[in-house]
Amino acid sequence: MNILILGIDGYIGWPLALHLRELGHNVTGVDALLRRARVDKLGSTSLIPIDGILKKQQEFDITIEKLFFMESIASDLDVIVHLAEQPSAPWSMKDREFSWKTQRDNVIGTLQLLWMIKDNCPDVHLVKLGSLGEYGTPPVDVIPEGFIEEGPLKGLSFPKQPGSFYHLSKVHDSANIEFACRNWELRCTDIMQGVVFGHLPGTRFDYDECFGTVINRFCVQAVAGIPLTVYGSGNQIRGFLPLKDSIECLTLAIDNPPGKAEYRVFNQFAETYSINEIAETVQRVKIQLSVRVHHILNPRLESESHQYNPKHDHLRELGYKPNWNFSEEISNIIETIIPHKDSIRQEVIQPQINWR
Amino acid sequence: MNILILGIDGYIGWPLALHLRELGHNVTGVDALLRRARVDKLGSTSLIPIDGILKKQQEFDITIEKLFFMESIASDLDVIVHLAEQPSAPWSMKDREFSWKTQRDNVIGTLQLLWMIKDNCPDVHLVKLGSLGEYGTPPVDVIPEGFIEEGPLKGLSFPKQPGSFYHLSKVHDSANIEFACRNWELRCTDIMQGVVFGHLPGTRFDYDECFGTVINRFCVQAVAGIPLTVYGSGNQIRGFLPLKDSIECLTLAIDNPPGKAEYRVFNQFAETYSINEIAETVQRVKIQLSVRVHHILNPRLESESHQYNPKHDHLRELGYKPNWNFSEEISNIIETIIPHKDSIRQEVIQPQINWR
Repeated sequence: MNILILGIDGYIGWPLALHLRELGHNVTGVDALLRRARVDKLGSTSLIPIDGILKKQQEFDITIEKLFFMESIASDLDVIVHLAEQPSAPWSMKDREFSWKTQRDNVIGTLQLLWMIKDNCPDVHLVKLGSLGEYGTPPVDVIPEGFIEEGPLKGLSFPKQPGSFYHLSKVHDSANIEFACRNWELRCTDIMQGVVFGHLPGTRFDYDECFGTVINRFCVQAVAGIPLTVYGSGNQIRGFLPLKDSIECLTLAIDNPPGKAEYRVFNQFAETYSINEIAETVQRVKIQLSVRVHHILNPRLESESHQYNPKHDHLRELGYKPNWNFSEEISNIIETIIPHKDSIRQEVIQPQINWR
Repeated sequence: MNILILGIDGYIGWPLALHLRELGHNVTGVDALLRRARVDKLGSTSLIPIDGILKKQQEFDITIEKLFFMESIASDLDVIVHLAEQPSAPWSMKDREFSWKTQRDNVIGTLQLLWMIKDNCPDVHLVKLGSLGEYGTPPVDVIPEGFIEEGPLKGLSFPKQPGSFYHLSKVHDSANIEFACRNWELRCTDIMQGVVFGHLPGTRFDYDECFGTVINRFCVQAVAGIPLTVYGSGNQIRGFLPLKDSIECLTLAIDNPPGKAEYRVFNQFAETYSINEIAETVQRVKIQLSVRVHHILNPRLESESHQYNPKHDHLRELGYKPNWNFSEEISNIIETIIPHKDSIRQEVIQPQINWR
């Protein structure tokens, strides 16, 4: 297939490109390189060195995000994977400017993409990265995959209760995309993805308060010999999956496109853990590191006591079956980090951004 | 009270300002004058002459939309009425540029306003104009006011199924505002307003395909002696209210503010009518005009056969009680238009914008 990846220079984009090429697909990429610039500006950098831009340009045609480039190749495309968004909740809550830039980049960017698809390649399969955080943590027994499954509201969108302007931007995207599928008969898989962790060769590994996700950050803290910073009680529960599984799931979505005019939602994660369970696992797997845990004042607005049971049947029905052990995964991440221990900048980890 | 009206130069903004001043409030206004420019650009203009900008400046301090101006007076404000949005669904569906400008102006504009309020006047009551069209026409017995009222999802946002990028921009606004109330403890009344019709002294009266609403457009067509253009079967049902009632309802919201951290939703309309009922009423009230009706291909994406029963209890509980007769209202509009008959530009009425 001819696949265009928007955001190919990112944490997920790069290993996805390598994987899809290995499978024999023809992969093209576009990236504005905003992630590199924004992480640098926070005083951080990828802990594990990433492939240089020049090197990537030899392998894929990475073009600084331009609609005209997309339009020029659109008619040959089978799939567009859209990962080109500002991906950090704390970044979006920092101040007014970071907030509106998040919604402008994500919402207006995706809206432009929808028009580009409608005008140039209306049959393309759009694979769009949303977030499991779009749902928030509502007081319900089960969170379905996108749509209400029972009762008088059956078939309508499941109500969302996002917890940051970043998560809101993904909610807005989902609403715009659903309408584009309904109105223009586009086809889309909207991925409500859980928190991704781990590393794959060639890609970035962030651990700062904005772009580092919790498991990766805890592993870095363990290696640096500083306490794991658990926000609040640590009883918050989220869905998680390793980076390799994210790549596998995205590939399953690509291999199994939805029908014309179909807006399809996948909840994409392997397991749910509380923040405390993660901290305890990091403590347990590396006893020699003598990891301490600090509960700090929660900088976020989030419930610290809630039920959480999102469905995730669709990808399993397509063949996704996680086959790893959480402790081993944590252990692998820590082994990968240890050679880079001296590069850790401790000052970028502690949260500075307060939600309120 | 000290009241700031954003969008004071508009169809609703201007008569609201006059009314609130009459009640003894201290009213300030801000406007970017985009509505005048955009209607002009479509080759149309207000059928009834409007107060000039210079004249308005003598009465209210109309400043070309600037956050710094708002910040300078914010600490004295009790209420901000936010009407400063691109208000046309067809305009938002015209092409890519009109679409993203609608979402940029409305969503990013409102987001900036929320930060301004949080930073400068967190106790202010924000009265925000949404749209009854945010809900769409879902297959349910009753559309509640904002929140699901029964069953396991009780208390969560009622799912929305908007039918244009304009309506989506209002849905995004509502989600951002709900979060701002939850996260920053702001207070807001989000008004899901039906279609407004009629005229009040000094304000504009549009009848073009974008900014003219259906009842006003039908009255202009009747006076011009051209057929009423009913889109499709005409069985579409919507909620409606006269402009004078819109002013009354907004005043009720202002007089009865919600509590701290409260996100309150009002469904604001008087009656529901099908498009056919409206066309028949226009035909009936002015038999001497011998009004014809043409059913034309529906340029919009909308159900032409649906149930429609939105609740509207909140405003009635505050004292809103419509006391007019629909035929008389139509008759009054037509009488108001007749002196301007020669100014009607027939070419701006026929729909050119196709949703698909």
